[in-house]
Amino acid sequence: MAAPDYSKQGYKDIIVTLEGSILTILINRAKQRNTFAGTLFNDLVQVFELSDKDDRVRVIIMTAEPTAPAYCSGADISGGWSSLWKPDEEKEGEHGHRDSGGQLSLAIYNNRKITIAAVNGHAAGIGMTAMQLPFDIRFAWEGAKFSFPFVRRGIAPEAASSYLLPRLIGVSRANSLLLTGVTVSPTSPLIRDLYHEILPSREAVYPAAKALAEDLAANTSQLAVAYAKGLIQHPGDSIEENHIHDSRAIKLLAGSPDGAEGALAFRERRLPKFHATLSKDTSPWFPWWRRLDIRSRLTKL
Amino acid sequence: MAAPDYSKQGYKDIIVTLEGSILTILINRAKQRNTFAGTLFNDLVQVFELSDKDDRVRVIIMTAEPTAPAYCSGADISGGWSSLWKPDEEKEGEHGHRDSGGQLSLAIYNNRKITIAAVNGHAAGIGMTAMQLPFDIRFAWEGAKFSFPFVRRGIAPEAASSYLLPRLIGVSRANSLLLTGVTVSPTSPLIRDLYHEILPSREAVYPAAKALAEDLAANTSQLAVAYAKGLIQHPGDSIEENHIHDSRAIKLLAGSPDGAEGALAFRERRLPKFHATLSKDTSPWFPWWRRLDIRSRLTKL
Amino acid sequence: MAAPDYSKQGYKDIIVTLEGSILTILINRAKQRNTFAGTLFNDLVQVFELSDKDDRVRVIIMTAEPTAPAYCSGADISGGWSSLWKPDEEKEGEHGHRDSGGQLSLAIYNNRKITIAAVNGHAAGIGMTAMQLPFDIRFAWEGAKFSFPFVRRGIAPEAASSYLLPRLIGVSRANSLLLTGVTVSPTSPLIRDLYHEILPSREAVYPAAKALAEDLAANTSQLAVAYAKGLIQHPGDSIEENHIHDSRAIKLLAGSPDGAEGALAFRERRLPKFHATLSKDTSPWFPWWRRLDIRSRLTKL
Repeated sequence: MAAPDYSKQGYKDIIVTLEGSILTILINRAKQRNTFAGTLFNDLVQVFELSDKDDRVRVIIMTAEPTAPAYCSGADISGGWSSLWKPDEEKEGEHGHRDSGGQLSLAIYNNRKITIAAVNGHAAGIGMTAMQLPFDIRFAWEGAKFSFPFVRRGIAPEAASSYLLPRLIGVSRANSLLLTGVTVSPTSPLIRDLYHEILPSREAVYPAAKALAEDLAANTSQLAVAYAKGLIQHPGDSIEENHIHDSRAIKLLAGSPDGAEGALAFRERRLPKFHATLSKDTSPWFPWWRRLDIRSRLTKL
Repeated sequence: MAAPDYSKQGYKDIIVTLEGSILTILINRAKQRNTFAGTLFNDLVQVFELSDKDDRVRVIIMTAEPTAPAYCSGADISGGWSSLWKPDEEKEGEHGHRDSGGQLSLAIYNNRKITIAAVNGHAAGIGMTAMQLPFDIRFAWEGAKFSFPFVRRGIAPEAASSYLLPRLIGVSRANSLLLTGVTVSPTSPLIRDLYHEILPSREAVYPAAKALAEDLAANTSQLAVAYAKGLIQHPGDSIEENHIHDSRAIKLLAGSPDGAEGALAFRERRLPKFHATLSKDTSPWFPWWRRLDIRSRLTKL
Repeated sequence: MAAPDYSKQGYKDIIVTLEGSILTILINRAKQRNTFAGTLFNDLVQVFELSDKDDRVRVIIMTAEPTAPAYCSGADISGGWSSLWKPDEEKEGEHGHRDSGGQLSLAIYNNRKITIAAVNGHAAGIGMTAMQLPFDIRFAWEGAKFSFPFVRRGIAPEAASSYLLPRLIGVSRANSLLLTGVTVSPTSPLIRDLYHEILPSREAVYPAAKALAEDLAANTSQLAVAYAKGLIQHPGDSIEENHIHDSRAIKLLAGSPDGAEGALAFRERRLPKFHATLSKDTSPWFPWWRRLDIRSRLTKL
């Protein structure tokens, strides 16, 4: 694939910048309180799918202007829910609906690079779900107000948050957040373990995320990250299954250019320089898990 | 179903009060240290099954007198374990036994309303398991002493606690609690994340639970809560399965009276007034998960 | 089985001592920074398999000299990864590899006694994975430096850590640790819930572990511990499955000598004296889960 130019993708609601191997996605709807509307959904799904295949990209950060009224204040439902439906889905009945929040969650979750959400403002609804939970790492501003207000809107938790949040921080706190819809600070014991680091000012959030991204972009293997994410996201039904899968991943990676460089750098007591890429150096065995095509509305469980 | 009168159910070991849409269950065996004996098991199973079907009920709180010696000091096993067996089970051999703690856990877990345990005293054994873990939300008194003493009694952890506790707070701390049987305070790092809030006095626990219950009773949708609980309690084997299930739940709820009211209240910048009920407004698709009938002792895995 | 003499097993890289029913394993490679090499792998697998079958053993503690440079500084990969491969595996292709870290993890995880890691020094790589995660309980020195550096070495997380760590402390913090490879203190919010207790000095770690071990060795049932570990490690796909399994475990244990002693001691208000053993008193039903033979390299998933 030719290296894409992110400035020429026609994005309207995000600004995308590639610096070295770090891709920064800036949510650019401050005038609309960074609501989830306009072209934001299509822009984000497209950039996460594109960057997954772009070997230059090692780390992806999503953030907002620290001066915006919110990181993401959720969907605008003042016109009702119908803006969420697509006409062709309507024909197929209730099982044909595919929640757009969930489609975004999947695009982010399935991205094989390290993904970081730099949450430098308030967040509610999809601003908490698809815009945070499918990321590998989250930073937050300690002054932010966060809520999952679904049960207070007569709706169910969206964007696969009922899958992600209990796994991320345990069912006890996921229940406290999803079943009450209360507003919490990131430092609340109910949610703090969702965050890699909590920063005192809005302005400090993106730089902290960027500093970690620079370390990871320089010092981690693109291949090793992709295999590690696969192992964590797709555990077996038993410890033995993970043992069999991680054994094979270790064997493949040890024989890859990055595995060789990792051992050599260790011996020479220096930082590694990893050059292997997903498009050239991945085994046909990867991904080893069954992929469920949720785009086809004919897929039933 | 005609609205039941909770004062006429013949309960002996609990006192049940319905105020508005909040049902309070008071454990009423203070003279016996609120041990798990007498009619407590039957009373509790019955009230959780009854209130599940009572559309008036939105939130259920279980608590004890703050002056009682304990919230629940466990089962009285001074007469041995045989009081736990039912004669008809005995005939069927060891696989025919159904732990009463587990039957209570299931009655509480399967209740579709928001359930809150207001733990305003010491708790041990079943006072920690069935009387706390299957609830959605737990409040505790910081001076309480808590323990899971099973391995110190020569018995296994009961009431599906081996399923619930690891999911609620993670396996590391579940191991620390279940495999050592140590006594801990609710503020111990080993258990504090089990609690929505920890209060300084016994007298403050029920009022704190009641305040949350009043907020939830007034401002959450009975339908949305039931679907949210179903999604959290019955996740798929993959994120894609949750995406398919929550999409369908969202579509159904958006088309329900509560979904319409949620969007309207949002537009009108006011609190919602939800009127939909589980008996009238649930889709035949709900529940969408396979239900295993554990009452039949012929059920084997 | 005749009681083994642990001093005559020919271990070179560990020193094993049985005091009463507590087995202490001392990692004895301080001159090599307690790296994972030499006979350490074979010694450890052997002692965990042997002690599993030795009825005298109730609790196992693994620790290092508090004066050693590290608890375990990981594998020495300065000669590359090939020291990890066994010649007979090579013939069978990539799926034939079985990670030695994972084999050790399984030997520890499948041991039916209470296992405690007393981590009184720095740890990296396998020092964090197989040497900590499969244990039931972990103690740590607050001054230790811990890291999971895999993605910084071009390799995947080994020793089934992708299965164990997310279950122990949740996926959010497991991602922070496994995908960044950052070095953390045990008191970091990212990892502290992995530890039962964190001690201020290296010298205090083993005594704290020993004190808990003495309590557990004296006051817990070997049978009840084994059933409890089985229930926690092998949960069902639904709460109902655990209810059916724990009901059967309770019935069997209540009818065992330890169940009888537990109830009697409760009635007589004294500490119990448990004498039942795994070799004499376990039901043929135990273990009730499907065991996957990972030693056979022909096993595929």
